[in-house]
Parts: sequence; structure tokens; C-alpha cells
Amino acid sequence: MSDERPRVVIVGGGFGGLYAARALARAKVHVTLLDRKNHHTFQPLLYQVATAGLNPADIAAPIRRILRHQDNVTVLLAEASAIDVAGRRVILRDGDPVPYDQLILATGATHSYFGHPEWAAVAPGLKTIEDALEVRKRIFFAFEAAERAEDRAVHREWLTFVVIGGGATGVELAGTLAEIARKTLARDFRRIDPREARIILIEAAESLLGAYVPELREKAREQLVRLGVEVRLGTMVTGVDEHGVLLGPQPGERLAARTVLWAAGVAASPLVRSLGVPLDRAGRVQVEPDLTIPGHPEIHVVGDTATLLQNGAPIPGVARAAIDGGRYAAADLLRALRGEPRPPFQFHNPGMLATIGRGAAIADFGRLKLSGFVAWAAWLLIHILFLIGFRNRFAVVLEWAVAYLTYDRGARLITGTLPEATTAPEVAAPARRGAPQDGARPATVSPNAPRDGD
Amino acid sequence: MSDERPRVVIVGGGFGGLYAARALARAKVHVTLLDRKNHHTFQPLLYQVATAGLNPADIAAPIRRILRHQDNVTVLLAEASAIDVAGRRVILRDGDPVPYDQLILATGATHSYFGHPEWAAVAPGLKTIEDALEVRKRIFFAFEAAERAEDRAVHREWLTFVVIGGGATGVELAGTLAEIARKTLARDFRRIDPREARIILIEAAESLLGAYVPELREKAREQLVRLGVEVRLGTMVTGVDEHGVLLGPQPGERLAARTVLWAAGVAASPLVRSLGVPLDRAGRVQVEPDLTIPGHPEIHVVGDTATLLQNGAPIPGVARAAIDGGRYAAADLLRALRGEPRPPFQFHNPGMLATIGRGAAIADFGRLKLSGFVAWAAWLLIHILFLIGFRNRFAVVLEWAVAYLTYDRGARLITGTLPEATTAPEVAAPARRGAPQDGARPATVSPNAPRDGD
Repeated sequence: MSDERPRVVIVGGGFGGLYAARALARAKVHVTLLDRKNHHTFQPLLYQVATAGLNPADIAAPIRRILRHQDNVTVLLAEASAIDVAGRRVILRDGDPVPYDQLILATGATHSYFGHPEWAAVAPGLKTIEDALEVRKRIFFAFEAAERAEDRAVHREWLTFVVIGGGATGVELAGTLAEIARKTLARDFRRIDPREARIILIEAAESLLGAYVPELREKAREQLVRLGVEVRLGTMVTGVDEHGVLLGPQPGERLAARTVLWAAGVAASPLVRSLGVPLDRAGRVQVEPDLTIPGHPEIHVVGDTATLLQNGAPIPGVARAAIDGGRYAAADLLRALRGEPRPPFQFHNPGMLATIGRGAAIADFGRLKLSGFVAWAAWLLIHILFLIGFRNRFAVVLEWAVAYLTYDRGARLITGTLPEATTAPEVAAPARRGAPQDGARPATVSPNAPRDGD
Repeated sequence: MSDERPRVVIVGGGFGGLYAARALARAKVHVTLLDRKNHHTFQPLLYQVATAGLNPADIAAPIRRILRHQDNVTVLLAEASAIDVAGRRVILRDGDPVPYDQLILATGATHSYFGHPEWAAVAPGLKTIEDALEVRKRIFFAFEAAERAEDRAVHREWLTFVVIGGGATGVELAGTLAEIARKTLARDFRRIDPREARIILIEAAESLLGAYVPELREKAREQLVRLGVEVRLGTMVTGVDEHGVLLGPQPGERLAARTVLWAAGVAASPLVRSLGVPLDRAGRVQVEPDLTIPGHPEIHVVGDTATLLQNGAPIPGVARAAIDGGRYAAADLLRALRGEPRPPFQFHNPGMLATIGRGAAIADFGRLKLSGFVAWAAWLLIHILFLIGFRNRFAVVLEWAVAYLTYDRGARLITGTLPEATTAPEVAAPARRGAPQDGARPATVSPNAPRDGD
């Protein structure tokens, strides 16, 4: 190898960046992949971490481990703060420049609170492992706080969960929350009945999962209602605070709820603003048909960071589109380096799936449209296959098998700082009380216990 | 059931508190178990979480889930701040009182920095899941920072790990760190060779693992050295800061290291100070032979929170002693309620095991003393059996089997806030560079990839 090889810099280790790097495995280039996290996150299953069905490490793997055998790749844990387009350099947050000959931007999307950044603290979204752990903490802490609350109104606020946004993430979260309340936690408390929890899914449009055909959207709504979710369509959110959600338009209805989860808006990562090219309303780069930016054929933008119309419709912001975009960008820049003709990117959507809950999903494979258990089985199979490359595939299957048989969710840990301030005033003493809710059932825990010499 | 049943309050859901609650399963009492965490933590395996071998949920389970079938137990997520001995009430942090007829204190131990609380921020210890995730972040971030550092001295500081304290935790951490550097990460980096990492274990006494017989202590030292750990015995630490450790006594030698882990001192939880009874130097309650405090036969103190001489030696601070103490306290308070005679607590130590690394351990079962692979196999077997009651037992076995065969550690996630300030000045640009360290090896990653429709 020689120092004269072209330098390819990839920003972002999500689906787009990772598959671009893989597609360069045999190319005579130096690849540097930058990410501000050390791990790739399998975002389609983040909601399972948020709802304690899976561990963080089940759906996330160190990027350098995934690429360990690819000698032409250097992985760096670093955050890019700007692109110096004229100087062909990525500027890191700490000021260091990373020069490139070819650049692939795959920085993904973040939450958008529609001009209300103050909602972020009250209604966390779900894009990173940290987000998922925050949501997990809030969900399970809410039941704990309800168990301690004596005031009936406060109690009800803790047992009311509002999910804002009826896309895939919102539907998954609401459906799984219903399962947690109705099944997983049903017998774990003494003073509250988790089955009384209200789960409310709010969507501004007149249907859920707008990317699907009307028939499947309606199936999804029916399945959610069957799981116990209250679905509010055509409903705007005009305010969010620690005690609930204000619905609009005027005059507003108020939903009293201590747990509000955000699954409504996404925006492209702000890094691309430094490119100086047109962005759409969500901050995405309006790329050329070859995924490059105008006037700079050495810069590709892929995945959720870009937007492109194809056959009159935007390419959807799904994992498959990011993967195909990343691979195309890798192949395209190699063609550019060799001076070959560069055909435009063509995205072939193999189908869409959205899961709703245990045994409930919808799927659209073109002529084949499924819902219910069959769609869910397809969803499960595809996601297990998709985890190839992650060492935890078998552990994940095992976790799911156990969870399916028992309704249990093993990762129900509340870690980090607890939201103490919000509980203190209403907490009451666990004083002498009457019999538990089902005092007639005999205790079944064996007094036997394992041993240890440590 | 009637409201006249005695109220038993247990503070702490560790081994002592949990087994006390279980031992009361069939008793006609109301049990309230308070813990400031929602989960029981299997502390003997915390170091595996800190070193990415296991997931948090593999070794921690919600307390209310463990006790879900025990109808006479109410579990509350709450922090006790004081004991009102005269009024027979536990005072919670938010001011609420929890009245009791019988009290079991099982609040465990925390770190002690020997009068240097400022060391805590630089040298985290290992008592909680949060601690373990902090240690994990620091270990794996250090290798990332070394990969980015150009300055040779800074590079070396990031690749130097100091573990302070040669007890069981320190030995486990040092041995596993050596395995991570020499095996797990050996091929994952391009600019550094993780095998060059120094792991230094510092112990003030003249031998490691003081609770064992001299022959086994020496075996442990030999095994650690074979794994690549530098063992410094008879060495005092007189200073700790972000850039290393000062050794004493005067004149001090300085070890330049960016990662310092604390496994030296423990102190009983400060809650027991409010009891107004004599404490030992480590803040533990000097209990009566029946584990109660002087003058208050209704208050038992068990596990690491108490200290008691038996046959001239203190009962060791191990899981088994906490379990036996918790069970004894439960049985003893029932005898007190029935007015029966109360025999003193007798701890029968079945043996001791300390693990050092892969295939390396020592074990003392009285006449039978083991070291090396056999001791390690015994340690592994006992800990797997011990995980009974945790649903993740099989997942844990699977994780370990995979880790053993591949040297891989799947939970190598760096989550939370990165220590950016310490890296910025020394980070260099990943500019055009020569061939990777082993450029002759062909890339083996298949360009094939799984599919998804999500």
C-alpha cells in the first residue's frame, strides 16, 4: 500500500455509513469513519430497549468491532462540527481538521419538537441508546411513583402515558406500553393495579402510519385498540409540560399525564447546514440523483440526512434506504475515482413492516399485504435475520423467546438519577394497611436459596 | 389477614434484605422492603458489567419482580435518610415516616476513599450498576482516546490502567483488564496496539487477597503476572488525580495514567449513624450476637452494615454472610414476636473463591485448596447456580460461553457523556497515513448484508 491512496472520510456509523465502509472493503482507498458514539445502533429495535425487552448491547455493537477485519478502515470516536467544503476537510468539535478526497455524510436524524425545544426535557424521543434508557427509566419509574402516591389524582397522572406521534415508533411504543401495563407488571404491585394504566397515542393526521395504504392503517388502529391503547387521530399537541399535554386547536383539552414520549418529528443532523446547499423543511440535504450535492461530486449524502424524489415520491427514511444509499455512495465514488460513468441511485423498496405489539403488525410487500400474527411473524423473522453481524443474535432470540412465553421483560432496571423532585410532595407513608389485593393466594416463593462462597 | 399483623420494615434490597424478605414468605406479618434502587444487584459479578462481559440486566433484577408472588411484601422505591429509634419509624428522604414493629437494616456498604473524597471523581469504585457503567465507559474510552492521541506520552497515559486495592474486586478488575487489552481488543485498532497497555495493581499490604492463606495469595499473584498485570505490593497511594497516581511514602513515585479504578476501601452506608450506637472504623454497627443493636432487640443489622466477631475473627463481608444474616434476622424476629428463646447467629463459612481471569482463580474450601483452571471452573459453576432466581441465567451462560470461545466482550458500549475535556488538546488529525499495521492481511468482510423493510 502507498500513501497516495485516496482518503475517503465517512461521517456517521449508522446504517448508511457502516454499509458504505463495508462496501469499500476491497477498494484501494484509506477510509476514516468518524462517529461521536463508539457503537452502531440498530435503531429499528430501540423501542425494545426503551421498554426493557432487550439490553442495550443486544442492539448495539462497537463500530470498530464490526469493521475490525477491514484493514483499510480507521474508526475514530470523534464529533464532526462542520464541513469545510472548499478546503475538503471535516472540522472536528475540538478544532482538528480531517482532510478528505471523497466524503460520505451519513449523520442521520435527530428529534424535532416543531419549534418547541423546551418540550425535549419533558417528552424524550427515541434515537440513541441513551434516549432509550431515559425512556425506560421514565416508564418504570412512573409505576413506582404511582405505587407510592396516595392522592388519587396524582396516582392517575402517574398511570397515564401519552405517546405523541403515530408513525412506526409511536405505534410500537404505545403497543408495547399496553403490554407492559396489562401483562408484564400486572401482578407486581400491591397498591396499584397496573392494568388501570391509560396509554394514549396522539396523531395529528387522520390516520396512523401514513406511509401505508388506508386498509393497513385501519388494521393497525384496530390492533392497537384491541391491545388497550386509546388512539386519538386528527389531534394536535399545543403544549407539553411535566403534568401533561395540551391538545388543540383552541379551546384546548388537557390530558393529565406524568409520562409523555415523543415520536412525532425528526430533523436531519445539523452538521449539513455547514455545506451551504439547499435543505428541506426537516433540514435534509436536497441531493442530486447520484446522492451528491450540487457542484461537489466528491460529497455524497445518504440516509436520513438526505432527501430525494424518485418516481414522484421521496425515498423513505428507513434503514433499507440508508443501507442502499451507503453502498451506492461507496460504489459511486469508486467510479468517480476511476473516471467511469456514474449512473443515478435507484432505490427498490422491498416492502414495509410496522410492528404494533405481541402478535400484532402490518406488512406491505406490494401485492402481498398482511396484518396480525402473520405480519408480526414476518417482522420478527426479518429483524432477527437483520441482526447478522451482531454477536448477540442468539441471545436476542433467546430473550425474545423467554419474553414471548412469559410476558416478562428482563431489563426493567431504573438506572441513573431519579426524578425525585416530582414525587416528593405526594408520597405517603407505607403505614399499616389491609390485606393485599389478592390475599387469598398463598405465597409460592421457596425459602430455598442458592449458595455462594464469594 | 388483619391490620393487626406486625409491621416488618426491611431497608435495602441486597442479599441481606432480599433473603430476609424471602424468609418471611409464610409469616403472618406485613413486610415493607425499601430500596433506593428498583433492582437487586448481584454484586459478585459487577466487575463483569464493568468490563463489558455481561449486560446490566444479566446481573440485576427488579426487586418487586423477585418478590412478586409474596403477597405479604410491599416493595417501595424510596431512600431512607434516618432511623427514629425511639419512635420506631424509618424517615424517608422526602420526610415521610414509615412506622415499624420490627426493623432489619441491610443497607450494605459504599466506597471509602480514606479521607480523600476528592478522589472519587477520578477513581470510580464498583458498588452499583451505575458505577459499573462508569468504569466500563472509562476503560473503553481510554483505548479510543489513545487511538486518537498523537503525542507519545499522552498515548501512553491513556494505555496505562491503575487498579488500587488488591482484594477480590481489584484482582478481578486487573485480571480482566489484562485479558481485554491482550485478547479482546488486540486487533480492533489501527494506530495503537492494545497489547502494549500496562495494567498495574497496587496493594498497600505485602500480599493480595489477605483473607486467604499465604500459599493461595502467592498463587493469585503468579496468575495475575502471567496474565500480564504488574503487581505492586506494599505500596501506598498518597495522591490520585486525572493524570495518575502518586505512590508513597515520601519521596513519592508518580504513575502517569488516565484511568484509575478504586477497589480499596469500603464503608458501611451512613444511614446507621442515626442509630446512635457504636460503629467501627468503617462505620459498621457493632451488633450483638443476635445481630440486634444494644437495647433494641427489634432492630437487626445484617450484611456489610454490621460487624461481629465470631470465634475471634470478624464475619467476612461476603454475599453468603449477608444471606445467612438476613435469614437469621427474619427467623429471630419471628421468635421474638412469639416470645421464644433467641439463639445467637452462627455463620458457617462454606469456603471462599476469588477469580482472577479466564481460567485463573483460587479457592479455599477448608482442607481443599485449589488454584488455576479447576478453581476457576468451581467459581464459574457456583456463580451460575447462584443466579437462580434471575431469569437471565441461560442468557448469562450463553454470553459466557460465547465470550470464552471468542474472547469477545459484547457489551463494549460507551454510553453517557464523554470526558471530552481531557482529550481535546492532544487529538490529532487522521491525515493521510501509511499502511495499517498488518496490511498484508486481506479484508475478509463480506459485502453481503442482511435486509430490512422497516
